[in-house]
Amino acid sequence: MRDLLRVPVGERVSLSSYDTSATPGGSAAPRSKTDGLAAITRMAEPLANLQERLWAASTAGDRRRILLVLQGMDTSGKGGTVKHVIRLFNPAGCRVQAFKAPTPEERQHDFLWRVRRRLPQHGEIGVFDRSHYEDVLVARVRELAPRAEIESRYGRINDFERALADDGLTLVKCFLHISFEEQRLRLLRRLADPRKHWKFSPSDIDDRALWPAYQEAYEIALERCSSDAAPWYVIPADRKWYRNWAISRLLLEHLTALDPQYPQPDFDVEACRKRLQEEG
Amino acid sequence: MRDLLRVPVGERVSLSSYDTSATPGGSAAPRSKTDGLAAITRMAEPLANLQERLWAASTAGDRRRILLVLQGMDTSGKGGTVKHVIRLFNPAGCRVQAFKAPTPEERQHDFLWRVRRRLPQHGEIGVFDRSHYEDVLVARVRELAPRAEIESRYGRINDFERALADDGLTLVKCFLHISFEEQRLRLLRRLADPRKHWKFSPSDIDDRALWPAYQEAYEIALERCSSDAAPWYVIPADRKWYRNWAISRLLLEHLTALDPQYPQPDFDVEACRKRLQEEG
Repeated sequence: MRDLLRVPVGERVSLSSYDTSATPGGSAAPRSKTDGLAAITRMAEPLANLQERLWAASTAGDRRRILLVLQGMDTSGKGGTVKHVIRLFNPAGCRVQAFKAPTPEERQHDFLWRVRRRLPQHGEIGVFDRSHYEDVLVARVRELAPRAEIESRYGRINDFERALADDGLTLVKCFLHISFEEQRLRLLRRLADPRKHWKFSPSDIDDRALWPAYQEAYEIALERCSSDAAPWYVIPADRKWYRNWAISRLLLEHLTALDPQYPQPDFDVEACRKRLQEEG
Repeated sequence: MRDLLRVPVGERVSLSSYDTSATPGGSAAPRSKTDGLAAITRMAEPLANLQERLWAASTAGDRRRILLVLQGMDTSGKGGTVKHVIRLFNPAGCRVQAFKAPTPEERQHDFLWRVRRRLPQHGEIGVFDRSHYEDVLVARVRELAPRAEIESRYGRINDFERALADDGLTLVKCFLHISFEEQRLRLLRRLADPRKHWKFSPSDIDDRALWPAYQEAYEIALERCSSDAAPWYVIPADRKWYRNWAISRLLLEHLTALDPQYPQPDFDVEACRKRLQEEG
């Protein structure tokens, strides 16, 4: 999956050439919703086991940790991914952070400041629902900063992410790619369900006029910031079950590659067992 | 369950009079592990729905939030509760915080400082794995502060918790009560499983000599800090399935009592629907 969905370093990205309803993954990919849900359920135990090993290893000095970055247009499923994929993990080892428009305090600092403060600690799996990429996406589309400042951010992001990778943080950056029409249908579904009205704002419709500008901003970000240290993955996201499966699978592949190990005991197991047994 | 497990305000507490392997709850209480797991599964959907409503309400200004405080001796199941109960919720709305021995920075401040910084935000469910109570438990048993300082902390905790309650935070404080013998068996089980060695330290055995002192410190804390604003609950915890069921049930009762509501839309739903439909 990593090779299949990765944005090649240094290549031009044209999002319109990606099929948002595709289900890539060869013979491993599920073919239906039922199939997809079953495949995710099968991953739950290996994912939880690997997470526990990652956490356990950190107690013995292993600095490694994972950061899942979720980006995508409104309704693309960032929240749904947290709800359905991150729930597979032990919440004690997860740190989920949603980034909204910067607060006045956050605006007083460099754009990476607020992100640095929310990074996962050793052994943790962090999740960013939106991220520092907003500062080259909405900031670019809505001209929230001078163009020269925005242009400088891509390089600063690459430096930042490389430093994190060098320090043992594995970045898994996912762009949840939905079609313009799929967004329309999802917004209509939100409007049809009073329990979802709170997620809706009329400005979501206004924003659709900016769709091409956002797609272009994403293309530039994916092009310039898909690096060997921190590649971008494009996740076809019109089918929620595929999106959840693909991201679970990506996390499983990354965790498997890290292969974290339970630490060896630094005490005499047999002597401890004897002490406890003799008590009884 | 709230009435059944609550420590009555102002009454003396004798932990030895509680049966750690009991399964109170009347006809609602499960009678076996299978029964308990099924009952927890049945609560998953109502819990998740209520959590979503709590979160949704916060987007319209509802300040309410929940803080589950977990305390108990080593191996009593604080981590297991997070793993099995908190996993039922959407991780986006949960904030789990484990408190260890205070860091040098934390020691520079009042004992409540580090706790205040980790409180759940509006609409969130926070979980403390250990808490400010350590400062009247281990601190008392190991004499980590002058006795007069420790004596003053109970009142300061009560003031702190009342202020939180007045501000819309519902405290659910659970003491996970296991027997001395159950701890011995659990420590032996950890030693028997190499995947659990990292959770073990020989000092866990040494600490057993302090068991009576800890029980007394807990009795004093439960007695002095079970208040109307923030009662303590004693959870019989020798049976893990009962512990998980009882805490799930307590959370369900509290969330049901809060009865958070989806906010009413502040926009014209029909007009928005028309705009989107005419697009297609």
